[in-house]
Amino acid sequence: MKLIVQKYGGSSVADVARIERVAKRIVARKRRGFRLVVVVSALGDTTDELIALARKICPEPEEREMDMLLSTGEQVSVALLAMAIHRLGEKAVSFTGPQVGIITDQFHTKARILDINTERIRKALGQGNIVIVAGFQGKTLGGEITTLGRGGSDLTAVALAKVLKAKACEIYTDVDGIYTADPRICPDARKLDQVSYDEILELASLGAKVMHSRSVEVGKKFNVPIRVLHSRRNGEGTLITKENRKMEEVVVSGVALNEEEAKVTIFKVPDRPGVAAKVFKRLADANINVDMIIQNKTETKSTDLSFTVSKSDLPKTLRVVREAARAVGAAHVGCDENIAKVSVVGVGMRSHSGVASKTFGALAKRKINIEMISTSEIKISCVVDGKKGKEAVRAIHKEFGLGKK
Amino acid sequence: MKLIVQKYGGSSVADVARIERVAKRIVARKRRGFRLVVVVSALGDTTDELIALARKICPEPEEREMDMLLSTGEQVSVALLAMAIHRLGEKAVSFTGPQVGIITDQFHTKARILDINTERIRKALGQGNIVIVAGFQGKTLGGEITTLGRGGSDLTAVALAKVLKAKACEIYTDVDGIYTADPRICPDARKLDQVSYDEILELASLGAKVMHSRSVEVGKKFNVPIRVLHSRRNGEGTLITKENRKMEEVVVSGVALNEEEAKVTIFKVPDRPGVAAKVFKRLADANINVDMIIQNKTETKSTDLSFTVSKSDLPKTLRVVREAARAVGAAHVGCDENIAKVSVVGVGMRSHSGVASKTFGALAKRKINIEMISTSEIKISCVVDGKKGKEAVRAIHKEFGLGKK
Repeated sequence: MKLIVQKYGGSSVADVARIERVAKRIVARKRRGFRLVVVVSALGDTTDELIALARKICPEPEEREMDMLLSTGEQVSVALLAMAIHRLGEKAVSFTGPQVGIITDQFHTKARILDINTERIRKALGQGNIVIVAGFQGKTLGGEITTLGRGGSDLTAVALAKVLKAKACEIYTDVDGIYTADPRICPDARKLDQVSYDEILELASLGAKVMHSRSVEVGKKFNVPIRVLHSRRNGEGTLITKENRKMEEVVVSGVALNEEEAKVTIFKVPDRPGVAAKVFKRLADANINVDMIIQNKTETKSTDLSFTVSKSDLPKTLRVVREAARAVGAAHVGCDENIAKVSVVGVGMRSHSGVASKTFGALAKRKINIEMISTSEIKISCVVDGKKGKEAVRAIHKEFGLGKK
Repeated sequence: MKLIVQKYGGSSVADVARIERVAKRIVARKRRGFRLVVVVSALGDTTDELIALARKICPEPEEREMDMLLSTGEQVSVALLAMAIHRLGEKAVSFTGPQVGIITDQFHTKARILDINTERIRKALGQGNIVIVAGFQGKTLGGEITTLGRGGSDLTAVALAKVLKAKACEIYTDVDGIYTADPRICPDARKLDQVSYDEILELASLGAKVMHSRSVEVGKKFNVPIRVLHSRRNGEGTLITKENRKMEEVVVSGVALNEEEAKVTIFKVPDRPGVAAKVFKRLADANINVDMIIQNKTETKSTDLSFTVSKSDLPKTLRVVREAARAVGAAHVGCDENIAKVSVVGVGMRSHSGVASKTFGALAKRKINIEMISTSEIKISCVVDGKKGKEAVRAIHKEFGLGKK
């Protein structure tokens, strides 16, 4: 019998009615002849509520105790889901992460899975059970409870699919799958039947609401086929898998928009080796994630250096960068919050030329000015005026014929 | 340094303000030079809320899954209490029952503690921590999560006090201690400074709101001194300990009232061996707890057999007893819900005569008729008209001079 790992997120089990619906879906699948391991997140907003409760008691709670607290959320879910399955007449047994031997490192609230001992799951499956596992959690070798951070339940599911050699890992969410663009921006956006791990990693803003990139990376590393599906509707969803010939025939898979970044420019940076390194070391030390970096030498003795950061990091970034600019002898620092980053992604780009010119052409036709450009093997990102971001997505989406036929 | 085990019930940690108050009390105690192991129950009504949630999903949830669900309640409490203690600048570490090695049998929802591995607690204490342990829970040798049933957190505390050889086990509640009678009935009831295990077991109705009898039994078995205290007021509370000479000097320790029982009478039971056994076997098989049993042979060929059961068990009891009565050839079955049981308790009774006559005399003076009498070495119980129960308690309380001087 084929083994499937399924994962249901918090919104799929937010109340009794939804838990019962999920139970029905699981039981129906089991009765079609599958062995099932089901990973569940905490009910609805439980995790956020527990965090808020902890903060009332202590503004910066110890991370070990946060894990002790937060891991209860999934434990409630697995017990209730097992009960709902029993009600439907099927055998089910729930386990916490520590119980099924999900061994992690000791970095509380953001632990990494080191190993999974599958003995207990295999035994329970062998006894005919649907096995329900609490997502997001594990334990250290010393028996401390840990959690895996945001997206941790997806990670549990993908990791279990790997060690159990499951036929597939199904991630149930509240969307039908991954689209060529955000349907709120492009009403004719088309659901992708399949997409590669690399593409979904680059399409972060399209995929982020669906799946955390850490889980995709693990899926990629161990070649676990991941299917993203709607938890209440029927449909095939989107299969995230390794590149194949069919994917390569499609030049562009999707267009993503990111309006959450701001652009910072350091003007007249002295043109000598090591200056950029100094600036970005200070940003790294301050734990600020930098996305695009553009340096374009236009004068002989100095250059302008621009980069983008998350808007939420902007105040901290400006403090750090102004200090760094003084230290390296740059002129001054400017910033622009009114930007949008549009990314065109597709593994087919590797073998097809002309994607860049077609992208720039689509923007030019609509008189959208490009402020920054950055490219990777399978992605072209353009920063444009923040007010033009959605229009840019629509223009590119149309140019590459990604919409419904 | 002396080791104390403390236990705080759900109402003591019902909200953030109360958790903080408990944390302050714990920290103050630690700073007076004690090592502390603190057992906590689930916040407020969490356990009842989780039970209600489970019942919505499944009218009779599997007990294994109930334990998985309910054990989260205490886990939330221990994490929050540890955080509140950190906030006050003291080291604390929380553990679940399974983590500290509370090993139980496999009877889910009412497991018994088999063994406690103290290594982890001793290590954490050795590192200067206040150790916070989730009450009410443990695990089987096979790693299944179990709960200990009602009063389980008290049991955890008393058992830990035993294995850790603690100087005392302090049970924090929302009462000052144990009284000579319910102060709502006898306004001059006096708090007892100390009381014996046996007395508190007999004074169930006075002690029940304070401590479950299972924990007292374990305390008695291993001679663990238990002190019942108020969680928000100061005071010495009541010490539950083994009998000592001082206790024996007090003839009567307290007067308890139980208005939750009903009397069932089987009329004209044939007077031959084995009849009573048949009746009570059927009651036991139906899981009905019988309290007082009185049989008084008045005629030659038959006798009337009366006993008391909890009012909540009355409908089931009558069904079972009517059938049994037919089977043994008794005449008919009657019942009386309008009764009250008044109990006079004191280890001093053993060496003092005249307690019974003084008790009966107190009731006679007030023209309170006694319907049933049952006695043990340290207790006399009388069943009287339900409307006269409180008056009977006051009469006896006064007769023995138990009130405040």
